[in-house]
Amino acid sequence: MTTAQSGKLWMGPGTLEIPLELFALNRRRLVERVLPKSPGNAVIVLQGGNEVPFYDTDTTYNVFRQESYFMWAFGAIEPGCFGAIEVATGRTHLFVPHFPKSYAIWMGPLHSLQDFSNKYGIPEVHYADEIAAVLKKLDPTVLLTLKGTNSDSGLTAQEAVFDGIDKFKVNNTILFDEIADLRVFKTDLEIAVMKYVVETSSTAHRKVMRMAKAGKSEYQCESEFLHHCYGVGGCRHVSYTCICASHTNAAILHYGHAAAPNDRFIKDGELCLFDMGANYFGYAADITCTFPVSGKFTSDQKLIYEAVLTANLAVFEAAKPGVGWPDMHVLANRTLLEELKKGGLLKGDVDAMVTAGLGAIFQPHGLGHLLGLDVHDVGGYITGQPPRRQEPRGIEKLRTNRILQDRMGLTIEPGCYFVDILLDEALADPVQSQFLVPDVIKRFRNFGGVRIEDDVLITKNGAVNLTKVPRTVQEIEDWIAGKDNDKYN
Amino acid sequence: MTTAQSGKLWMGPGTLEIPLELFALNRRRLVERVLPKSPGNAVIVLQGGNEVPFYDTDTTYNVFRQESYFMWAFGAIEPGCFGAIEVATGRTHLFVPHFPKSYAIWMGPLHSLQDFSNKYGIPEVHYADEIAAVLKKLDPTVLLTLKGTNSDSGLTAQEAVFDGIDKFKVNNTILFDEIADLRVFKTDLEIAVMKYVVETSSTAHRKVMRMAKAGKSEYQCESEFLHHCYGVGGCRHVSYTCICASHTNAAILHYGHAAAPNDRFIKDGELCLFDMGANYFGYAADITCTFPVSGKFTSDQKLIYEAVLTANLAVFEAAKPGVGWPDMHVLANRTLLEELKKGGLLKGDVDAMVTAGLGAIFQPHGLGHLLGLDVHDVGGYITGQPPRRQEPRGIEKLRTNRILQDRMGLTIEPGCYFVDILLDEALADPVQSQFLVPDVIKRFRNFGGVRIEDDVLITKNGAVNLTKVPRTVQEIEDWIAGKDNDKYN
Repeated sequence: MTTAQSGKLWMGPGTLEIPLELFALNRRRLVERVLPKSPGNAVIVLQGGNEVPFYDTDTTYNVFRQESYFMWAFGAIEPGCFGAIEVATGRTHLFVPHFPKSYAIWMGPLHSLQDFSNKYGIPEVHYADEIAAVLKKLDPTVLLTLKGTNSDSGLTAQEAVFDGIDKFKVNNTILFDEIADLRVFKTDLEIAVMKYVVETSSTAHRKVMRMAKAGKSEYQCESEFLHHCYGVGGCRHVSYTCICASHTNAAILHYGHAAAPNDRFIKDGELCLFDMGANYFGYAADITCTFPVSGKFTSDQKLIYEAVLTANLAVFEAAKPGVGWPDMHVLANRTLLEELKKGGLLKGDVDAMVTAGLGAIFQPHGLGHLLGLDVHDVGGYITGQPPRRQEPRGIEKLRTNRILQDRMGLTIEPGCYFVDILLDEALADPVQSQFLVPDVIKRFRNFGGVRIEDDVLITKNGAVNLTKVPRTVQEIEDWIAGKDNDKYN
Repeated sequence: MTTAQSGKLWMGPGTLEIPLELFALNRRRLVERVLPKSPGNAVIVLQGGNEVPFYDTDTTYNVFRQESYFMWAFGAIEPGCFGAIEVATGRTHLFVPHFPKSYAIWMGPLHSLQDFSNKYGIPEVHYADEIAAVLKKLDPTVLLTLKGTNSDSGLTAQEAVFDGIDKFKVNNTILFDEIADLRVFKTDLEIAVMKYVVETSSTAHRKVMRMAKAGKSEYQCESEFLHHCYGVGGCRHVSYTCICASHTNAAILHYGHAAAPNDRFIKDGELCLFDMGANYFGYAADITCTFPVSGKFTSDQKLIYEAVLTANLAVFEAAKPGVGWPDMHVLANRTLLEELKKGGLLKGDVDAMVTAGLGAIFQPHGLGHLLGLDVHDVGGYITGQPPRRQEPRGIEKLRTNRILQDRMGLTIEPGCYFVDILLDEALADPVQSQFLVPDVIKRFRNFGGVRIEDDVLITKNGAVNLTKVPRTVQEIEDWIAGKDNDKYN
């Protein structure tokens, strides 16, 4: 058995079978979009990813994972590939690495071109070193390549390059916005994969919630998550570095990365904020659960947790086609601030708090982001979509300002954190400080933080939550107590 | 708690504490070597690693792991660092990234220079953006930077580069051979870390041997290994992509990499060849176990397994200071071929088989390699050491031809594989074919392969095996049957 055969990609029994039609449909959608903008015999050319050496050694960074634009269109999981689509006809070509026969010793029996053709359901397969000659025969009016800036990273998408491309007319301005925009809207076939990876990640989160007892380390919790996602779900990768943050670490938004490697041992009475998501053949989950180590929320923990949950649910109820995402961000901010006011941390007019940017003191990140083949998925600020805003403060962090539409995948992830540097700033600010109740704020100085992050799909009838984890205080306490074993399946 | 504090690096209770003296001692050894070659006020400058973005996204490849030369000398685990050592005095400077205060929101309270100084036991810590100014004040006669080719990958070591380096006299020819050679010889402090990571990996292998029952997938076995190494051993990385190969996949030497992702489900009657090793703060383990899924070797499996084990043990007994590694490679070849002859697969004179290159038909890789901070460790073919050989066939794969010496870390990993492409070649070769017994060889066509890989330390008294796994047929059958639970601790 190999990972892809007979019309599907999967990891074997017990894991999801991804039909190759998923990628064929994406290609048809792409051709339909591009054809009116590039009549004649245009050919789309995408380059797949390559393995990255670990510094100067002969090992590589992790296990290869395909570049997302290429994966979306061709579904081929090997490094060193190219793909081409004739826009006029939709005819697709896959180009695979040309290895010497001796590579069979290291890589096993080499696949023939026909093997690749069967594996990926693409009739025309050639060797990558023949790409210029093959494309020449197609006599294209223009090659359409991918060039554009990822609005989250500021980095540039990998534009196809091969020996002999200088002999062709190349246009790199049409493709990027079209393919990025198409990736925003998920087909039924893609939704099935997203459901699988979100459910697998949800189950892993639930498992971790029960094993995260006092004395366990954050990294042991991360390891448990990874083990479920891979060993049970067949998800060889996670979509991003796991954030397994306990106690005050929960207020560190990028906790878990290089300098602070999830190595604290957790204690009773603390909250854990675990932001972890698996990746299945490119498709990402991105879920955050916050829960008490002891299995029981303290009153202060309940206060903050339920404030964030109220914001999460308010957004979930309101999120539907036609609604602007920045409005949802402000709704989350306003709801949270209202709850914090009820809880005695804040005083004064909530609208004035929002205007004063108090939302960004407690939630210094955006409400959520597009989700798909990348965890922070593309299409957020492409041509023709609303640009980034600056007011109220914090909204500039939003990874998209788009109007919600049917078939968008997004995260809803409001949070509330007690970050010293931000609280000090607010207390020193003449406008912001008037809303703070210093004595109560002081009580939360070493609280850490809460984030509740769901993966949702926008449908005509509103948002659908793909995440399957206990969310209310009662649900979490019951789950950790060993109840409700069948409730979330 | 952070990973490094009060003079040690560790992941917390239950994991190994690495004293910072390990790195200080490496620096003193380096200065001692370099001083005679570069008198005056020379300053060694090394650049640490940086995070690598995952294509154009704002996520990165895996979790950051430090570049090995830098790790060896400075022990600092953050990306974006530089280190400098004044050769005349041994005085050390660490340069750390200079983040804006606002980064505290994302990264937690920023460490001060004093924090880093305490964390790494290096009195002189500065910001990386001040490196030119700080070095200028030292008024160095020359900066010594690292430039050289990794003989396994063909890639070039990362030479330090910073704004303003053009104002200094730079020598990049002295350092590489010296530091690579020093890395070959392990101090007691390094040996303690190697023992820890090899023992952790050994325990994980033993666990996997018991869970690898028919119906489990190769990836589930890999996941079990990773979970033990991280969740119990605190090893956040593995040293290389796990090779979890069952049945005929065992004959694919790079199985587990991108195109063949450990996704087969294993069956009774088959052999598993699992090559997996953890990494603890840079130090690598590299262990291969081969065992029968059912827990009982068939007679053919026993034949091949014991042939390889005989070769492994012959090398282990012979490996000691003064012995040439290529001679060990040939010894392994000869021993294996002798055993295969006894088993009826081969006929004729064994010395003639060796000369005819038959060793490389059954073991198309080198006997083993240096082991340390890199799994294929540096120093194999540096200046002044024996160059690569071409005869007998297969020896060109050896990653070093050095004479064994006290304190070298190496793998001993003979193997025997039945690779169609190689067997066909040998059968078609007028010289090689005369040694083969075609009918018997035919019986082994779908056998897969066996590799037995130990991590050893060369001492004055011979090789010491750091690996703690069942090795004889009886030991393996007993272990899988649930016996000997305390034998390998």
